[in-house]
Amino acid sequence: MLNKITPDILQLFKQAINEDRLVSDPAVLADYAHDETEDLHYSPDLIALPETAEEVAALLKICHEHSIPVTPRGAGTGLSGGSLAIYGGLMIAMQRMNKIIAIDERNLQATVEPGVVTEELINLAATKDLLYPVDPASKGSCFIGGNISHGSGGPRVVKYGTIREYVLNLQVALPTGELIWTGANTLKYASGYNLTQLFIGSEGTLGIICKAVLKLIPKPKQDLLLFASFASNEEACEAVGAIFRKGIIPSAVEFMERKGVEWVISYDQVQFNLLPEMEAFLLIELDGNNLDELMLQCEEVNQVLEEKNCLDVLLADTANQKETLWRLRRTMPVSVKANSIYKEEDTVVPRATLPTLIRGIKAIGTRYGFESICYGHAGDGNLHVNIIKGEMTEHDWHHKLKEGIKEIFDLTIELGGTISGEHGIGLVQKEYMPLKYSALHLDLMRGIKKVFDPKGILNPGKIF
Amino acid sequence: MLNKITPDILQLFKQAINEDRLVSDPAVLADYAHDETEDLHYSPDLIALPETAEEVAALLKICHEHSIPVTPRGAGTGLSGGSLAIYGGLMIAMQRMNKIIAIDERNLQATVEPGVVTEELINLAATKDLLYPVDPASKGSCFIGGNISHGSGGPRVVKYGTIREYVLNLQVALPTGELIWTGANTLKYASGYNLTQLFIGSEGTLGIICKAVLKLIPKPKQDLLLFASFASNEEACEAVGAIFRKGIIPSAVEFMERKGVEWVISYDQVQFNLLPEMEAFLLIELDGNNLDELMLQCEEVNQVLEEKNCLDVLLADTANQKETLWRLRRTMPVSVKANSIYKEEDTVVPRATLPTLIRGIKAIGTRYGFESICYGHAGDGNLHVNIIKGEMTEHDWHHKLKEGIKEIFDLTIELGGTISGEHGIGLVQKEYMPLKYSALHLDLMRGIKKVFDPKGILNPGKIF
Repeated sequence: MLNKITPDILQLFKQAINEDRLVSDPAVLADYAHDETEDLHYSPDLIALPETAEEVAALLKICHEHSIPVTPRGAGTGLSGGSLAIYGGLMIAMQRMNKIIAIDERNLQATVEPGVVTEELINLAATKDLLYPVDPASKGSCFIGGNISHGSGGPRVVKYGTIREYVLNLQVALPTGELIWTGANTLKYASGYNLTQLFIGSEGTLGIICKAVLKLIPKPKQDLLLFASFASNEEACEAVGAIFRKGIIPSAVEFMERKGVEWVISYDQVQFNLLPEMEAFLLIELDGNNLDELMLQCEEVNQVLEEKNCLDVLLADTANQKETLWRLRRTMPVSVKANSIYKEEDTVVPRATLPTLIRGIKAIGTRYGFESICYGHAGDGNLHVNIIKGEMTEHDWHHKLKEGIKEIFDLTIELGGTISGEHGIGLVQKEYMPLKYSALHLDLMRGIKKVFDPKGILNPGKIF
Repeated sequence: MLNKITPDILQLFKQAINEDRLVSDPAVLADYAHDETEDLHYSPDLIALPETAEEVAALLKICHEHSIPVTPRGAGTGLSGGSLAIYGGLMIAMQRMNKIIAIDERNLQATVEPGVVTEELINLAATKDLLYPVDPASKGSCFIGGNISHGSGGPRVVKYGTIREYVLNLQVALPTGELIWTGANTLKYASGYNLTQLFIGSEGTLGIICKAVLKLIPKPKQDLLLFASFASNEEACEAVGAIFRKGIIPSAVEFMERKGVEWVISYDQVQFNLLPEMEAFLLIELDGNNLDELMLQCEEVNQVLEEKNCLDVLLADTANQKETLWRLRRTMPVSVKANSIYKEEDTVVPRATLPTLIRGIKAIGTRYGFESICYGHAGDGNLHVNIIKGEMTEHDWHHKLKEGIKEIFDLTIELGGTISGEHGIGLVQKEYMPLKYSALHLDLMRGIKKVFDPKGILNPGKIF
């Protein structure tokens, strides 16, 4: 049973945190009632803006004692409704805990607060010739705490591994009000259950991240960017596997459908000569320290692309050209958003089954009467499926479509994949969890939740 | 309360698995009573040799119903006593589940049973120009199931990441007798709590791994091997960090103390010209697809080594020379074992603090009257500390030494590290867990254990 915030409890909050960082102004509450997921709105009753881990812990202790629902919030850029206060209560917004505490150049580690904007860390690390390779599309606004909580990815996962490889240690405030460090500041760790890894991707349901120690790596000195056009989605996807079989691991292999590129061109006025026969595109980045070596790799990639019937390959010559090509991919989510009501699914499958997945999605769309725009991290088999409302009736959109999404997920799972690769389950995917997991499996997850949060106060109603 | 195997329960086992794969011959039991950890002996009462996941699950179901302790066992190469049947009962030995089920060249994945010897997978993958980069020193005899259970590493972690990056999905038999797949066969996964990651490093206490889907990568076509000698441990360790700061990520950076090399030379008759002033050594491997590029990297590494007062650098010219240099490092554990009674600790710290750790260990040794031989994965900050019994009395060895080990771990933790990097906690490190973890933290781990294994039958007495 979760409770409402009474005046007495509000008094307790005021003892835990300075009053001016407790916000109940309805305009502000409305701002924090949504994230980037569809058109969902759930207002918290109160927002706290802590500045220290101890304040977060103190707030949680009060909420635990009085069974007040708590929703942690990063930058609100989530795509699964993970930061929506669906039971009202207290929202703990992490934006003031936004310090890069240290960049340790001797150990190649960074210690950050959760409210650091991802790109700020990337940029600061770059000034020291270091790379933090986790770069979600929203890197200019999303927070590192949210990235960790959602297991967020980005283009470079394909070469550098997921965020799991870069989070070494976390300070978390538990739902019961204690602070712990989950692991150690080390590259290896075999000392009991790995709570660091358990927290990554747990979507703020097990604790609130207050600090993170992250691994950095030497920043590659050079990169090349190729943009390849194909006559079909299948040929583009086939080329992806072939590049890896050639022994090359690009630092990004992004896939885009024609329609997505068209929408970006009209939304963002990107200059790109889109020929009628071009149906699918790959953006391929190669990085390393030696430009000659990269040019050799580039030739090999070109050979593979030719073998796979590539129509045309652009090699970006200047920083400007690179920026334009990346914009084609990075602006795609907002272009879709600006163009239509849509729902985004975050399918992921073994890389080589991508053509089957895309064909299946299109066939399901035909049966259920929806169009989709697909793009994503082809090197990881991670395809973002944007389902466009278009001409669908409200009834079909809200009811019939669910069956179509179920079919997409059934296909994803049948191919060895899962229902989210990097966006998380949050609120909007949780009804699909039983497609992937048995009741027993879900009970194990619920059991873990209960160990950390016996009263179920933290981010209630998410994941399961 | 755990029970003994009664004749009735034995009958149930015989219904679950063919009788000739239930072994109670005392000579065999004695063989399975130890692993590679010190001189510990604990005999199981019965050994089962299942051939399928379903058999493992059926055995566990019986043990769960009748509260029989179960100890899973891989190849018995563990260094923390994780596979010792300290409460007797049933040992489930995985050696017959030893098939490489598939190498999927299109998706760069392998599906294996847990009893596959690690090197067999490495070798088979290599014939297809693929790399499985997890190569513990015992790779010629250890099992992949054990590697996953212990979070085992090896030299290449420094470039390719830990085993966590290579385990995509696991089929596990739960202590309650059900089979589940923990995840999906995908490179990314953000679909609820990541049970795959939770099982990695859980030392067979949450379930028994029956199949694993592993990530493979393109095999680099070339490698170079350098062997650098230094006048002090400190200078060798300083050089490690400097190589990374130069922007180079070697595929191995192994550290060895002089005494370890001396013991290898006398144990294994390795030809190596050990000059009097050489006190510490680094074995540095560079890999990639392009030999010219590697030679350039090699020059840069040489420059760094010179700046760090390296006495001498050997560049291995032939496959034979490479083999010899690797033998110096790989034979070190058995050379130590052959030379003296010893205890091995598996400390890990942030890379740049290694010199402080080594200095501290030597000082602690002086105070407690023990000698130590240190070697390990310097690139990861992972130092194997072999404490030599030498002249220590039995009493000091069994009692006073514990205080010395505590001091080593206290120092490790103070430096931001932890008490095991890749060997696990098992039986012999568990008394040191409270040095690293608060009671609350240990309770969270115990809580998770209870979710999976409510009766505590599986690998009881390990970790905590």
